[in-house]
Amino acid sequence: MVPRVIFGRGSFNQLGELLAPNRLNNQAPFVYLVDDVFRTEINITSRIPIAYDDKIIYVSTIEEPKTSQVDELVEDIILTSKERPSGIIGIGGGSILDLAKAVAIMLNNEGSSEDYQGWDLVKHKAVYHVGIPTISGTGAEVSRTTVLTGPTRKLGINSDYTPFDQVVLDPELTKGVPKQQWFYTGMDCFIHSVESLNGTYLNAFSKTYGDMAYQICKEIYLDGSLTKKDAQDKLMMASWHGGMSIAYSQVGVAHAMSYGLSYLLGTKHGIGNCIVFNYLEEFYPKDVKLFKKMLDKHDITLPTGICRDLSDKDLETMINVALSLEPLWENAIGKNWKKTITSKKLKELYLKM
Amino acid sequence: MVPRVIFGRGSFNQLGELLAPNRLNNQAPFVYLVDDVFRTEINITSRIPIAYDDKIIYVSTIEEPKTSQVDELVEDIILTSKERPSGIIGIGGGSILDLAKAVAIMLNNEGSSEDYQGWDLVKHKAVYHVGIPTISGTGAEVSRTTVLTGPTRKLGINSDYTPFDQVVLDPELTKGVPKQQWFYTGMDCFIHSVESLNGTYLNAFSKTYGDMAYQICKEIYLDGSLTKKDAQDKLMMASWHGGMSIAYSQVGVAHAMSYGLSYLLGTKHGIGNCIVFNYLEEFYPKDVKLFKKMLDKHDITLPTGICRDLSDKDLETMINVALSLEPLWENAIGKNWKKTITSKKLKELYLKM
Repeated sequence: MVPRVIFGRGSFNQLGELLAPNRLNNQAPFVYLVDDVFRTEINITSRIPIAYDDKIIYVSTIEEPKTSQVDELVEDIILTSKERPSGIIGIGGGSILDLAKAVAIMLNNEGSSEDYQGWDLVKHKAVYHVGIPTISGTGAEVSRTTVLTGPTRKLGINSDYTPFDQVVLDPELTKGVPKQQWFYTGMDCFIHSVESLNGTYLNAFSKTYGDMAYQICKEIYLDGSLTKKDAQDKLMMASWHGGMSIAYSQVGVAHAMSYGLSYLLGTKHGIGNCIVFNYLEEFYPKDVKLFKKMLDKHDITLPTGICRDLSDKDLETMINVALSLEPLWENAIGKNWKKTITSKKLKELYLKM
Repeated sequence: MVPRVIFGRGSFNQLGELLAPNRLNNQAPFVYLVDDVFRTEINITSRIPIAYDDKIIYVSTIEEPKTSQVDELVEDIILTSKERPSGIIGIGGGSILDLAKAVAIMLNNEGSSEDYQGWDLVKHKAVYHVGIPTISGTGAEVSRTTVLTGPTRKLGINSDYTPFDQVVLDPELTKGVPKQQWFYTGMDCFIHSVESLNGTYLNAFSKTYGDMAYQICKEIYLDGSLTKKDAQDKLMMASWHGGMSIAYSQVGVAHAMSYGLSYLLGTKHGIGNCIVFNYLEEFYPKDVKLFKKMLDKHDITLPTGICRDLSDKDLETMINVALSLEPLWENAIGKNWKKTITSKKLKELYLKM
């Protein structure tokens, strides 16, 4: 879990103060990984407290984070810094936050990041790292994973060293999020809560967090009675609570199948989850109904037919990526999930999408 | 915040495994501070994973924790250990958890614990410390304070070094709690949520945690439809969430006045809060009504007339302790609290109790 969090509108202004005691020396920079949509957002960039050899690296998030991208960032940082960085600060959505976590780990661990995809494979503590979400929903700010697409799979680096040392939750930073992205990313949180609350791994810890995320998502995406500011504040908390809920349980069918889409087609995580979840009535009947109402209320039209023209070989690849995520299926269906979740079953589902 | 938490029935059995990597060497013991009600509870004591020079110190919790008690424990541990301990593990209710946090801090900081009562006065990182609650409600397992009665005041050591490094939430450990204590300590949590939710310091972070604690308390103490096990599980989470809620806001009138009672009369925190809260209709009208229903439903009779025979001097002492807790009053009433909260006002209230 994240040991230090600050919350509040304008709390981003405290960043310099938070970082200062963690500067190792004047040669060891803080490196900021910033979503490149902010390249021209003076209001954000001018408030990044650069000093000494600190640097900002703008990162495109058009694609999902890759292990090769992590390795390149790490090499670049090592080559251009006089000393190992004092810290890595991610400012952006789930992709940037995951990259920041992965880069911080890989600065202190040998080899390629793909060697660490899995559970508890990281040997050394990560470099001090800070997460500052600018969009709410992924839960990446609180999770103990960093989901990466590698050469053979899409899988997280799950470890006790993955979570951020410090998180800054400033809802004001989310005010510029485009509507579609606000919807898709918020639905990531809704789906986290649904998958956690309906999973066989559920316990009282995950349930109370999941309940809270679920209620807030309904309040924001269905009731719609909150002011814009209150909705921003609350969605940031829903993202956090949804992340906490799955940290102590697991995600389910939508995430497993969406990882398949993302691996093969590069579909971004938020929209990928939505495309899949829309066809999961048999697993989450009540909540897929609610989801359809939300789509409707916000005039969101999902892409269709994205798997229709795939070759059998591509479909097989996608299905194998999805099926390989055993803990997700076990959580969703139970220990005997292999009886009902077959290649044939997933093919039918994917072909609907 | 607490960086590592495990949750679940039976999770206490994982303690040995959790501690092992944190043992500094064979001469540096783990020291267990255990509520002495467990002295004869073989089911608990036999599962404490003692090795090398590790030791168990049983501590009476008939009185609230004192700065002098912390200093004595620290001296005793230093005198009887070959090296500075690898860790301090508290197993008990709020008093034990607060003692464990304070002892861990004072093993690495000079002077007396009374020098550190206040905000952010601790200079050095505490010894590794683990909290294992055996009763739910105080939120001491998650808070960044450790409330101590010193020679001149009752006030916490509030610091970034105070929170536990590891918490074990095993609801099974709460099954032997006597009914009255279950009620009073659970009400500590209820009152945390009420004071946070009705305070001027409230923000979306505290609100979502406070809402959750509040709802669970109502479910347990009013609806009463949960199984015994579910109620134990959920109350443990309510305590956690209530603690998180006040960590990012503040407590209010009941806590300020109850600290006064406790300082002068030694009233235990849980029952002290209840005695005070019962007379706070003008501050928390809806929730004092709910509280009275809970008292009724569980056949709890609170002591009465405890301040009736106090001398004016004693009353004044008590009132001064309560009034000195400025952030609590500011949260409860607002910046201009001094206009309405006077010595006279508090005297009237105390004399009702």
